[in-house]
Formats: sequence, structure tokens, C-alpha cells
Amino acid sequence: MTIYDVDRYLNSLDDGRAVYYRGQKVSNVVNHPEIGAAVKHASLVYKWQKDPKYRSMLVCRDKDYGEISTFYRIPKKPEDLMERFDLIYKTTRMGRGTFNIIQAIGSDALFALLIASREIDSKLGTAYHDRVEKFFRYVAEEDLALAVAQTDVKGDRILRPSEQSDPDMYVHIVKRTNEGIIVRGAKAHTTQGPVANEIIVLPTRAMTKDDADYAVAFAIPANAKGLKMISKPEKASEAALNDPWFIVGRENVETESITIFDDVFVPWDRVFLAGEWQYAGLIAVMFPTYHRFTAIAYRAGIADMLIGLGKLLAELNGVDDKSHIRRDIVEIIKYKELLRSTGYLAAHESKMDPATSIYVPNRVITNVGKLIANENYLDVVKHLVDVAGGLAATLPSSKDFENPDERKYLEKYLVGKKGTDAIVRSRILSMTKEIISSFGALFATAMIHAEGSIEASILELYRSYDYDGSKDLAFYASGIRDELRE
Amino acid sequence: MTIYDVDRYLNSLDDGRAVYYRGQKVSNVVNHPEIGAAVKHASLVYKWQKDPKYRSMLVCRDKDYGEISTFYRIPKKPEDLMERFDLIYKTTRMGRGTFNIIQAIGSDALFALLIASREIDSKLGTAYHDRVEKFFRYVAEEDLALAVAQTDVKGDRILRPSEQSDPDMYVHIVKRTNEGIIVRGAKAHTTQGPVANEIIVLPTRAMTKDDADYAVAFAIPANAKGLKMISKPEKASEAALNDPWFIVGRENVETESITIFDDVFVPWDRVFLAGEWQYAGLIAVMFPTYHRFTAIAYRAGIADMLIGLGKLLAELNGVDDKSHIRRDIVEIIKYKELLRSTGYLAAHESKMDPATSIYVPNRVITNVGKLIANENYLDVVKHLVDVAGGLAATLPSSKDFENPDERKYLEKYLVGKKGTDAIVRSRILSMTKEIISSFGALFATAMIHAEGSIEASILELYRSYDYDGSKDLAFYASGIRDELRE
Amino acid sequence: MTIYDVDRYLNSLDDGRAVYYRGQKVSNVVNHPEIGAAVKHASLVYKWQKDPKYRSMLVCRDKDYGEISTFYRIPKKPEDLMERFDLIYKTTRMGRGTFNIIQAIGSDALFALLIASREIDSKLGTAYHDRVEKFFRYVAEEDLALAVAQTDVKGDRILRPSEQSDPDMYVHIVKRTNEGIIVRGAKAHTTQGPVANEIIVLPTRAMTKDDADYAVAFAIPANAKGLKMISKPEKASEAALNDPWFIVGRENVETESITIFDDVFVPWDRVFLAGEWQYAGLIAVMFPTYHRFTAIAYRAGIADMLIGLGKLLAELNGVDDKSHIRRDIVEIIKYKELLRSTGYLAAHESKMDPATSIYVPNRVITNVGKLIANENYLDVVKHLVDVAGGLAATLPSSKDFENPDERKYLEKYLVGKKGTDAIVRSRILSMTKEIISSFGALFATAMIHAEGSIEASILELYRSYDYDGSKDLAFYASGIRDELRE
Amino acid sequence: MTIYDVDRYLNSLDDGRAVYYRGQKVSNVVNHPEIGAAVKHASLVYKWQKDPKYRSMLVCRDKDYGEISTFYRIPKKPEDLMERFDLIYKTTRMGRGTFNIIQAIGSDALFALLIASREIDSKLGTAYHDRVEKFFRYVAEEDLALAVAQTDVKGDRILRPSEQSDPDMYVHIVKRTNEGIIVRGAKAHTTQGPVANEIIVLPTRAMTKDDADYAVAFAIPANAKGLKMISKPEKASEAALNDPWFIVGRENVETESITIFDDVFVPWDRVFLAGEWQYAGLIAVMFPTYHRFTAIAYRAGIADMLIGLGKLLAELNGVDDKSHIRRDIVEIIKYKELLRSTGYLAAHESKMDPATSIYVPNRVITNVGKLIANENYLDVVKHLVDVAGGLAATLPSSKDFENPDERKYLEKYLVGKKGTDAIVRSRILSMTKEIISSFGALFATAMIHAEGSIEASILELYRSYDYDGSKDLAFYASGIRDELRE
Repeated sequence: MTIYDVDRYLNSLDDGRAVYYRGQKVSNVVNHPEIGAAVKHASLVYKWQKDPKYRSMLVCRDKDYGEISTFYRIPKKPEDLMERFDLIYKTTRMGRGTFNIIQAIGSDALFALLIASREIDSKLGTAYHDRVEKFFRYVAEEDLALAVAQTDVKGDRILRPSEQSDPDMYVHIVKRTNEGIIVRGAKAHTTQGPVANEIIVLPTRAMTKDDADYAVAFAIPANAKGLKMISKPEKASEAALNDPWFIVGRENVETESITIFDDVFVPWDRVFLAGEWQYAGLIAVMFPTYHRFTAIAYRAGIADMLIGLGKLLAELNGVDDKSHIRRDIVEIIKYKELLRSTGYLAAHESKMDPATSIYVPNRVITNVGKLIANENYLDVVKHLVDVAGGLAATLPSSKDFENPDERKYLEKYLVGKKGTDAIVRSRILSMTKEIISSFGALFATAMIHAEGSIEASILELYRSYDYDGSKDLAFYASGIRDELRE
Repeated sequence: MTIYDVDRYLNSLDDGRAVYYRGQKVSNVVNHPEIGAAVKHASLVYKWQKDPKYRSMLVCRDKDYGEISTFYRIPKKPEDLMERFDLIYKTTRMGRGTFNIIQAIGSDALFALLIASREIDSKLGTAYHDRVEKFFRYVAEEDLALAVAQTDVKGDRILRPSEQSDPDMYVHIVKRTNEGIIVRGAKAHTTQGPVANEIIVLPTRAMTKDDADYAVAFAIPANAKGLKMISKPEKASEAALNDPWFIVGRENVETESITIFDDVFVPWDRVFLAGEWQYAGLIAVMFPTYHRFTAIAYRAGIADMLIGLGKLLAELNGVDDKSHIRRDIVEIIKYKELLRSTGYLAAHESKMDPATSIYVPNRVITNVGKLIANENYLDVVKHLVDVAGGLAATLPSSKDFENPDERKYLEKYLVGKKGTDAIVRSRILSMTKEIISSFGALFATAMIHAEGSIEASILELYRSYDYDGSKDLAFYASGIRDELRE
Repeated sequence: MTIYDVDRYLNSLDDGRAVYYRGQKVSNVVNHPEIGAAVKHASLVYKWQKDPKYRSMLVCRDKDYGEISTFYRIPKKPEDLMERFDLIYKTTRMGRGTFNIIQAIGSDALFALLIASREIDSKLGTAYHDRVEKFFRYVAEEDLALAVAQTDVKGDRILRPSEQSDPDMYVHIVKRTNEGIIVRGAKAHTTQGPVANEIIVLPTRAMTKDDADYAVAFAIPANAKGLKMISKPEKASEAALNDPWFIVGRENVETESITIFDDVFVPWDRVFLAGEWQYAGLIAVMFPTYHRFTAIAYRAGIADMLIGLGKLLAELNGVDDKSHIRRDIVEIIKYKELLRSTGYLAAHESKMDPATSIYVPNRVITNVGKLIANENYLDVVKHLVDVAGGLAATLPSSKDFENPDERKYLEKYLVGKKGTDAIVRSRILSMTKEIISSFGALFATAMIHAEGSIEASILELYRSYDYDGSKDLAFYASGIRDELRE
Repeated sequence: MTIYDVDRYLNSLDDGRAVYYRGQKVSNVVNHPEIGAAVKHASLVYKWQKDPKYRSMLVCRDKDYGEISTFYRIPKKPEDLMERFDLIYKTTRMGRGTFNIIQAIGSDALFALLIASREIDSKLGTAYHDRVEKFFRYVAEEDLALAVAQTDVKGDRILRPSEQSDPDMYVHIVKRTNEGIIVRGAKAHTTQGPVANEIIVLPTRAMTKDDADYAVAFAIPANAKGLKMISKPEKASEAALNDPWFIVGRENVETESITIFDDVFVPWDRVFLAGEWQYAGLIAVMFPTYHRFTAIAYRAGIADMLIGLGKLLAELNGVDDKSHIRRDIVEIIKYKELLRSTGYLAAHESKMDPATSIYVPNRVITNVGKLIANENYLDVVKHLVDVAGGLAATLPSSKDFENPDERKYLEKYLVGKKGTDAIVRSRILSMTKEIISSFGALFATAMIHAEGSIEASILELYRSYDYDGSKDLAFYASGIRDELRE
């Protein structure tokens, strides 16, 4: 086995990949002022693997694969899922409140594919499972960095893939050859695609027979021919260039791209679904179950940071025992602890897939946690801002603290409660400000849409809840039945 | 050991206790038309203990006490708390959605007293723990029915007990003798007091030195001289007298009383706190921790019934796949599953009291669950009513279905979706209606105030959360500290 | 002109109408213990008309109809709608917080019919407007008591009227003769039908060509042959029989019935729509616009009572300046004042129907107010209960205060803040309790469904909002357009 | 009279004022890349005054002052306040959704000072009113640009001004001379201070006798000696430098500063309060009443833009008739129309100050509107983002659309519903994104804190509501009183 190290990872990215940023082709992502920040963040996983303080958490020994990243440990019992939850929660904290997706999302996808491919093979006599397993072994043993591209650009949201006026609105197979398939289309919101080694591509929804060519899953290297990634502007990294205080922006961001497949070739051993439209839905629902479980964990980590910012601001402002401020802080705590609660119960009540012995987080509880995470995030922000006060918007820049003419005033006038330090208070305020400005679009949107929208969780939850016991009780309570059946 | 049976319990209540109902002294609570319904509900615990279907859940073997009610099993590991959660959840379902408090609240109080008394003895050299243990053994071995009286009538809420113009606004010691103490005052909202064997009395808040006489905890039989219980009107039981459909009202209600202590004598071996004002707060916070954990469990059981009613109404009305109806149902599911999630995590992260080896549910998580339960209940009702439609208010009575002149119309016009039955739909609607009418004051108020108000949970949660890790992360993310300390 | 008086109204109800209550035919609604309370409430309108204190508000002079009830004044300018809003708000307060629907809903329906009939006549050459006007003159001049039956029992909610397996799930024309039409079906939730003089029947939704027989509107006397009304159980009136304190239950309730049309004959001059399916939707949307405007007003009146109860409880409990209690009270005030705000703006921005010169409240603003009223009511209750405390459920009955053995304790222990009176506090708590118990199903359900459900308001609002200006601004702000068009 | 024109305004700003931006002293605010955008926005008022399309709205004739800006028209009847509401609403729309504060806030302050000074003079025999009036005449006749500095930096929020360890935490008088006063301290969040002609300074709270030196109000030119303004970083303007699409960032932003008074001299004729501590509270409450009324108006304007963005995105994405999307849009409409409703009612129920005949918006209704505006803004954003989808965060930059290699893909893949244009959709998304990123801190924080925090509105509303009528109704409904008093 080979646990990557940071340098090997950095070198691996200089592979000719086609990445664009603000209209410019990026020659090397590692050195790029903004994309480089995303590289720096991803590389932390490799740094921690070597760090004696964190090694036992980040690296584990697997009987099949040897020493591998703990992100790639296949969950074989509920406790494995609990430890995975903790791993994601803790590494999010270790990343200054920024989730580290670089092995988390890929493993979420591969766990889903391992289960789904077995099911497809057993029903249709295909041979996908071996391919997935072989790819998984490669990824785990090489300790690779992965991205997952699932959400198609979609065109008209009301129409199915095959009904779109432009057939390329969903990624699809345009040609099949003896060697593999040619795919075309574009996926939106590929997190860390530009800094990953491999891109795993999954269908975004259930398909009908007419959509068979859209039922496609595969993996390709990030420098595959025809693959182009257009990154979003990284406001946080840009802000950090001008702000010595804003370390998160410099070291802990993730990039996201529109990922374009301009007739990309995929060899058969990297193809995990190709036309079996009946099973696109299985993958499209199995991956989110794992990934929403992951989401609950990292959001609990973010929430922990928001509690800290809020409590410190309350103390620094000297309003720590005001009733409405208490309420604000409690709302943030509630958010975090509900996520942790659903995460643990989703693990505790996880179910084993009988064919592969892999554990799947409880679907209902996972989606309850996800729904809470999505719907309440901006309410949490409201409470944080209520504690912070107006300076969360009107704070001078860190540069003003460097000019002695201004610094004397700022150090005098920006103190809060007696004995507090104006710089500490300003830096806590500054971090709070970035959460709602340079990070604002990312956080607000990711919290509402990433890993599936609010409506997606509602639908999934509504469908997967088992109503029998509840109805039985309703019949019993209403006197229609004489006793409980269960 | 003696596991009670139903008859022994019923006979035990004919003991001369002073109970009033709507201005009348109740000669025998068992035969009373309304209080009798509360007796019937409490007696279920004894019935289930004998029922082969439920015996293994309701009865357990303890190495010290022999075969006892599972409600009286002292939690010695996190799993014991999880099983207790399930016990309460399931018996709430078995009680048609009505919690069965008769041994649950007493054990919550006694677990708290076992821990607190040890702490007091170790600090002050008192000998309370032995008394509590002896009483606990008596209760467990005799399988008694218990009530707990904690909330004082309070007078002016802003003033401490000793500051009130009438000194009796909180229960207090008016005299100490060689044999025991004499207490005076009144407690509100004593659930099932009128149908319990013993009443455990606890202080309702932390006390100061001036309040020393108010720092008092003890247990007395329900027929103690000077003890008077004035029951609230039982609207559900009254409604059931006139409504053959409303079985819950006839068999599954609990009564609540104002419990008056008109100079009641308590022998020393039943006194668990008498003047040690420094420890009133410990009891006042330890008991709610157990009891709020219990509350989360029974409310999840109620919520399960609401899911069943809501889903059945959606199906019977034929609106099962309307987006806004789906949303309604999902909100009720969310409520239930958040309660189960916090219950599970509160048990999983429970802490052992080192002196007694008794496990205490995690205080933060328990209060998060309780807060959710309190704040969101009426929102859940809103969603249920949204599904039910206007008939939840305007449904004719079950008597109208007995008059053939009306029945022919009602059976024709009250069907919903094709193939559904007008009677079934009407009974489900009828049960829904009772939840917001004859049960309305109980449910709305209990959900907001029972086991502590919303503000009480906020305060408790705010104080007990450990902010160190969160602040550490905030310092780290803001760049003020270079690495995480924890 | 003839302004009714109370006696004439009471006598008019002894007309052989077929009303059922809890399975019994009611021989005379006036003397009936529960329905009689609804009569008493309705009769207040006639009492006030004669009362010098209120006469100028309740009676007005119309140039066409002479001296008539102000409820029957046709709005001919925005100020008329504002005065109508005040009339309904004030009479709701004068009715102890209970809306008085007896002339309000009928006038809402007739204003809608006056406008719609003119429109239909002008498009189809029918002659409905004259009939409506003649009926309106009769009603206004005779100062009649009216009910409106709109909501059909509906059967399977997904199917249109003509698609139902039982064709009678919506009221429809089963036969047309030279003299009139024969109608069959049933309407739910007819408020005050059993105590009205005339029942106005309106279609509940838009219709298609296949539903033509269901496009029917008419008016019939309450004692029409074949008309049967099954009242819901009146829990508030029943509670009042046993509770001297509960005056509202004895004097200020409204009854609601399922109204059955068992082949009822309607003469042509009482038929206002008969098959013109294209216009069913117009009536089904015009009536709610008026009626929701009315709803906002009466709910503001109810909210005013809730503010009073809440503020008094806060003061009596001595928690008047607690931050979270302040918040509770402010939420109730907010509810009321938002209703008043939307009511006034809906009047101010009302639009004149050009053909009839009748003013229609602004549809968007009316539905915004209605939405607020529906969605937030139970939240308001939550805040009220939070202030009230647990006694809102566990308060002894007024009968307990009559028994001297209990009274001495209750008067001692139920005082709140120093100097307050236990009886006053208990009566305020008792009223609060009835709102969530005997009135609970009515209030919770009516607030969510009466005058149209939440979803109905959302749909109506979404459709009637004029997006042009908003889009224009969005184009301008996004830089797509260079200047604002409007 | 002299109505300013744009050039005269621009020239007036080159007056040696001390403004800092990101650590640099700004030599001329007009030409500064970021502050210049705020100048551009402010200058629109002067541009519109000359524009035939808008002139009649922006300029009015006053009998005392001649032709003046409509912002400076003193409200002498409710309709004046309604027109003022419309003026602010419309100019916010004309400013691409950005409020134009430059004459609005100053007039809010001066209306408050006109009333308060009269009251102070009549009670204490001072002569402030004449000074205020003279200053007002000067401002109106010269058509000046104004800023208001009210919120002190505050230090320890729990302590009063005179209790702070550093006495300068609130602006205060350090010396009185024959010519005037010398003031010291700092005010936070001074909107458009760096681009105003005059700064009006008001006390931020009620004062006690010990705080007398802090009871100070005055006006000074922006270039007064000792006055220093440190602007916050203008992320929106900075973003616009790099983004041709983002016109708002280039032309429609407002700057905010920390305003430092380093021993600034104020001549007596510019001093409006100097030690009369009993009246600091009157000013501190009167100004916000006007200014919150203004806030409701401009926020309705912002909301109108959000409706437009949301509806366009729904249509462009082709999800216009999805139930949950409809709900999203309706929530934004509700927000806007509730603000308009409260604005209208606050004007309609405004009260005349008897001494000056100036109308003051209704305090309760104004604060209800403000509370809605503050508490629900981020919820509105949630709904907008839900409609927008993930591209609101991950959209490529406008520069990517300029690179032909990327543009061909973006134009293909970023179309939504058939027939829509990828560029139009992207620009609408881009504007949406800026609202939650470069504008994020401003919007989130301003909406929660500007013109007073949530808690401030709750307190004000709680205190100013007249409970008599509501309590009277509660007594009547509870049967404690026999009839309504009012």
C-alpha cells in the first residue's frame, strides 16, 4: 500500500487538466492564487495522515487493502458509521470549519456503487461489481483524491432527459465501441473536481426506458481528453489575498466547477452503468443516502464554529446573560446537536445490505437530519448576526489596523466588555463577516442545495418512512381496532 | 417480591384519600365516572405485567430487588437508558397515545434522589441516602403506583419563596419534631396524584439560605392526613361518556390535581431533604433531566399516533400525493424522529454518577430534545389539521350515526376517496378532533409546560453546554490561534 | 324598511326546519340548550341595532333601500370597506371575541353575486343580476339572518365533481322544471345554517363543461322541504352548562352543520347560476375575496382578546417584564396588527368593478392577510399558553370554588402577584383554557380552513400578484435592461 | 432656493474630509474606485431632481422654503407620510434595489429634532427649536446631502455611558466654551457619512443624570476638524471592478464608516442637545420611529427586486408551477406586502404632534413592520435560493462568458427552460449570487440591525402598545366585567 504524501498529491495535479478561472485557462492549479487555496485544503488530508497527532484517526488497517485512509473504510457495522461521522465532524473542525470532501464524497459514491452494482449484476447478469471493486481497490491503495459529478445542468427542469430539446442537457452515451463509451454533457457543482485525481460520474435521477442512454455511471481521470472544468470565482480566496486575518480564505476553501464532457472516452473497466435505466434511480438514491449522512457530520462541524463565534461575541460584547442573546446561542447549539443526534441514530439504525454486508445509514433519519440542516441554516445565521451586531457588516478591514493613524482609534473604540481586546474582537467579527459575505453564496446555497435540495429530502423521507406502525396505532387509538398489531 | 396485580392496585386506592372533582368529594376514585378513567389507564401497567405478550418488557429481574417492574430498573449503563426510552415509547403507544406516568415519574424522581442524597451525605454528613434507598426498595418490591409533586403554586413569580407575602406559596417545613416534620403549602399539576399510592415531593427550584425551610423533599402515602387533592375537570373522560367512539377518553386519561398540604406530618424515614438549601437546586435539576428524557420518549409515542392519523386522513381524503400534504406529514415525522434521535444520543452520551454508578442522560441533548418537543408541538397540530380539513371541527357526533334518519346521509356524504368507509374516516376525524378539543388544553399546555417550560430548557441547555471546544475552533478559524487545542 | 328586532328573529326560527343535534331532531332551536346559545349570539345583531350605544354603527341609511343593517351596505368606495372592516372587528369584540357571521357572510356572498351575475348576463344574455338584486333588496329590507353553504363534501378530493363515483358528492341540479330546479348533494361546515332565515348556496370551485350541472348557485329558506342540517356537537355550549364562569359558551357560540339537500326545489327567481360552468370559478373566487377580508377583521378581534388575556396573565403572574414573556405578548400583538394592516391596505387598494361600481378588496393583500391569519394562529396560541402556565390545563372547575372546603384553599393558593385576586386570575385562566379545549377544535380548524385553506390562499395569491413591475426591476438591477419601465 | 445639481454635489465633496479605506487615506472620494460608487449612488437624487420623468416626485414646493427636495417635506398630514413611503419605495427601485439614504435619513432625524426641541424648550426654557429650524432651512434650501451618526461604539454593552472604564465609548461633551462645545467619541455604522455634506449626531439611548455629558445632539460639516471616517471594505464595489455584469456594485452601493470625533468643535448654533439628559431618550426614540418607517419602505423596494429575481428564475428554470416553488415565491411576496401594509397603516394611523403639527408614524405599527422586516429577511433569502438552485453559488464569472473557448459551452449548458437565454439566466443568477455574497454581510446584518435591532423593536412595541382595550375585552369575555367599556 502507498499512503500518499502531500508532495505526491501536489505533483499529481500537474497533469495537463483543463481548468478555467475567471475566463483564463489555469496552467497549474497548485500555484494558482485562488484554486491553489483549494489544493492547500485538500492536501490537509495527506498532511494529517502523516501527523502523529491525527494518524490513528486518518489511517486504518483493512484486511483486504492493508493500510488505507479511514475515509475508505467500508462500513461493516453501525459503529463504523459512527466513527465515519466523527471522522468527518473532526476533520471539518480541523479544516477551520471547512469540510474536506476530497476522499469523503468519493467513498460515499463508491459504497453506493458497490451495493448497487451487486444488485444490478444479480438481476441482469452484468459484471459491474468487479469493476467497481477493482476501481475501489485502486483508489484506496493509491490513496487518491476524488470528486463526484452528479447534478446535470438539466435544461428545462420539468422535462425528462430524453425530452429535452438539446439532448445534451444530461450526460449521456453518444457512442459505444469495443473499448468503451463516449459521453457528452455537463455536470454542475462538481466540488473539488479541479483538484481531484479522479472524477466519478453518477446519474442524477431515476430514468425511464427512453432515457436509457442517460443511465450512465463511470470514473475518469481529471485530465481525460475532452474534460473541461470551469471553476466558480472563489470570493473567499480572493478576499484573503487582501486580508492577512482571513486564513480560512487562504487555506481552507473548496472550489466548484461546471464539468464539461466534450465527447470523453471511458474504457469499459471504468464504466459502472451503461444503459440499465431501471437502476439509475437506485444509484441516484443510494449515493445521496451516504452523502447526506456525510453532510450532517460536516455541518455539525460548521455549526460548532458558529457556536464558538457566537458565544465569544456575546462575551466580548458583554451581553452574555441577556435573555434574547441566550436564545440566539441556544438556537445554534440546537442546530448542531440535532445534526449530531440524527447522525448517531442514522448510524445506530443503519441497515446491512445483505448481498455485500455493507451498512447503509438509516434513510429516514438521515433525511430528517439533512432537512434540518438545509432549512435552518439561514436561521442560525440570523441568530449569529443578532449576537454579532452591526459591525459584522461595517467592520474596517485588517489593513486599517496596519495604518498607525487609524489603528490608535480602532484599538480604542473597538473594544467591547472591559478587559477584552479590540483586535481579538475584530478578528472574531471579521470571520463572522466572511461567513455571510465572501463565503455567503457558498454557505447559503450549499446549505440549501448541496447533497440534495429541501424538496428532495422531503420526497425521499416521505417515501421511505414505514407508516404501518403509525397507522396501526391510529386505528387502535380511534377505537377502530381493538389492539395494537405491532 | 410482589408484582402487583390489577385488583390489588384497585383495592389499594380505597384508602380514604381526600380527592375532589368539580366541587364534590370523591368517595371512591375507582368507580368515579371521570377519575375512574385515570385509574383504568394506570392499571394497564399491572395488566401488562401479567400479559405474556408484554411481560418481558414490563418486568425484569434485579440482583438486589428480585423481579420488579422494568420502570424501576436503575440505569447502570447507556443501554439501560435506551431500553427505558423504548419502554416509555412503547407503553405510550400501548396506551393509545397516552403516556403512562404511574411508575415512570416516580422512578425518575427516585433515580435523582439516589444520586443527590449520596452527594448531600458525602458533603454534609447527613444520612439521606439510606432513607431513599429503603423507600426505593419498598416501592420496587411492592410495585407501587407513584406520583411526584414538584411545581409549587408560586404566588408572585418574581419573588423567592421566603419573600412571598404569604409564606405558604411554596411547600415548606412549619415544624420539626422528634418523629418528623410538618409541612404546609400546595403543589400544582400533580399528574395521577389522586390515583397513586405514594406522593413524592421535591423542591421546585434552587434555594438561598433564607429559603432553608423550603428546601424539603419527602414521600407520603396518598391518604396522609391533611393531604387534599383537587382534580382538574377531565374533559376527555366527560366527552367519552357521551361518545361510544371515544375509547381513549374512557380508558386512557390521566388526572391532575392541585395537591394541598394542610400541615401534613412526614416521619423522618420518609424525609429526603430538610433544610439543606444548598442542595435543593441539585434535586430540582437532576429530576428534570431524567423526567425530560422520559418526556421525549412519550412524546415520540404521541407523535407516532399523529403520523398515523395524518397519513390515514391524507389517504382517506385522496390527497396523499399533494405536495403540501406531503410536507404536512413530513413535518410530523420530523418531529417524532428528532425526538427519537435526541433520546438515543442522550442515552448514548449519558454520564455515570461516580458515587452511585447510576447513569444520567446527557443534559444538553436531553434539553435539546425537550425544547423541540415543547416548541414544535402546536406546529405539528397545525400540519395535522391542515391534512384533516374542516371536518376536524364540524364532524357530527357518533350519536348522529346511530339515528337511522341521519346515518343514511352521513354514510353517503362522509366517504372520502373511492372505496373508503365513511365510518372509518369519521372515527379517524373524531379522534383528531378530540386531540384539539377535549384533550386540547392538556396537550397544548402539557407540551409547552410539562417537565419544564421552554424557557427552563433554554436556561438549562445554555448553562450546561461545554463551550470550550467550540470557542477553540472559533479562535482557530479566525486565525487567532494556530492550531486546535482539542 | 323593517329593522328586525330580537323577538321577531327568535319567532322566525320556529318554522319547522329540520335540525339534528347529537342524534336527536331539534324541535325548536331557540330553546335548545346548545343550539340556543348560537341563536342567542346571532340575535345580538338585532339587539345592537336597537341599542342607542351601537345603533349608529349597526344601522345605516341607503338611498335605495332606506334604513338597513350596516352589514348590508354595498361598498361603493374604499372607505366603505374600511368601515366594514371596523364593523366586523368591533362586533367581534362586542361578541366576547366570537365573530357574528349572521349578516356578514350573507352580504359577502351577495356582493360577489351582484358582480358576477352582471358579468354573466353581459356575456351570456342571461338575467341573473335582477334576481340577485331582488333577493338582496328582500334580505336588506327584511333585515334577515343568512348563512352561506359553499364547501361541498367532495368525496375523492382529486376528482372533479362529474368524475366522482357517487355523483352527489357536489351539490348539483338533478332536474329542471318550468318552476325551478331540483338540487341534491351536501355542503359541509355551514356556519349558523340552523339559526338562519335563508341559506345561500354557491359553487365551491371552478367547473369544466362536464361539470355543468354542478355550476349552481341559489338561495332557499332554512325550512325548505328536503333540507336537513346536522349540527356538530357544541362543546363550548355543553361546557357552559356546567360552568357558571363560562359566559361565552352560553351566549357567544356559532353552530355549524352538514347541510343536506335531499332533492330540494328552488324556484327560478331564487336561482343565480344554473349550468353556466364557465362562471362557477368567478363566483368561487369572488366570494372568498370578500369573505377573507371579513375573516381578517374578525380574527383581529379575536387576537385583541388574546392580547388582553396574555397581558393580564403576565401581570397577574408577576412576570410582566421577563424578556421571553415580552416576546410572547409581542407575537400576539404582531399577529393582530398585521391583520389590521393588511385589512386597511386591502381596502385602500380595493378596485371598483366597472359594471356595478361595487368595490372589491385587493385580492393579493387580502390573501396575504388571510395567509398570516391561518398559518400563525397556533403559534399565537403557543405564546399565550407560554404566558399562562400549566394552570391553563390543570385549573380546577368553577364548581370547586363553590364548595367552601375547597374554596378556602383555592383562594389562598391561586393568587399570583401580590395584591391580585385568585378568582380574577382563575377566571382569566379558565377563559384561556376554553380557547384551547371546548373551543379548541373550532378555533384550530377554523383558523386553518375557514374561508379557504392555507393552500387556497397561496394559490390565489400566487396567481393574482402582478409580477411585471418586480420582473422589470430584476432585469434592471441585473443590468439586462437599462432603465425601469415602470 | 437652489436645487443642487449633480456637479455641484460632486464638487462639494472635495473639501479635505478625512476618509480612510482599507488602510489608505482617500484623497478624493469622487474618484475613488470603491467610495466613488457610493458617490455615484447618492448623486442619483440630484440627477432625478432634474429628470423630467421623475422631477414631480423628487421636487416639491413648500410655502416656507420654496422649491425643495420632496425628502425634506415636513409631514403635515397622514397622506404626506404615505407619499413619503412611496417616494422611498420608488427611489429604492430606481436605485436598482439599493435604498438612497442621502436625504432620507437626515430628514428623519430633523423631523424628530424639530418635535423634540420644541418639547425640550417648552419644558426647560431652552432655545433649541430655533436652531434646529434654522439648520433645517439651510439644509432644505441648499438641498444638502446628509448622514446621521447615532449608534455609539458602546464598549461594554451592559454598562451605561458614564459607567464605562473608558469614558469615550459614547460620544460626549468634553468641554463647553462660549463659542460651542468640544465632543469626543466614535459612532459606528454611519451610512454615507464619507459622501455627505453634513453629519447629524444623535444620542443612541436614554440617559440618566450621571450621563448628562452624553446627552448631546448636533450637526457638523463632513470636513470638520478632528472628524475621521473609516469606511468598511466595499465588497460589492470591489466585485464590480472585475465583473462587467454587476452594475449595482459599480453604481448603487452605499458606504458605511466608523466616525471618530477626536475633540471636534461644534458651534452653539449647531448644538441641539447639550446635557439635558432627560430628553436624550425622547430623541433616541423619535428618530427611529421616522427612520424605521423609512426602513419599511426601502425594504419593500428590495423585496420587490427579490420577487422579480425569484419569479424569473422559476420561469427560466421551468419550475414555475411546482408547489414548493410557488410557496417560495409567495413567501417573498408576503414579505413585501406585509411591509407595505404596515407602512400604509402606520401612516394612516399616524399622530400629530400638537406643538409642531408634524405627523409621526404610528409607533406600534411601524415597529411591527420593522420586526417583520428584520426577522424574516433571511427566510426570504432562503426561499430565493431554493428557487435559484446551486448555480447561485457555482456560476462561472462573467469573464468566462468572454472567453470564446468557454462561452460556447456556457451558452449551451446554462440555458434553462426551452427558449430561454443562457446569458439572461446567468445574469439573473449572478445578481442573486451577489445578494448573498458581496452584498451578503451588508444585507444580512443591515436587515437585522439597521435602524434598530430585533430586540429594540420588540421593546419599543411592547411599551407603546395600548393594552386597555384588549384587557377590557379579556375581562368582558371572561365574564369578570358585564360589558365592554370601550
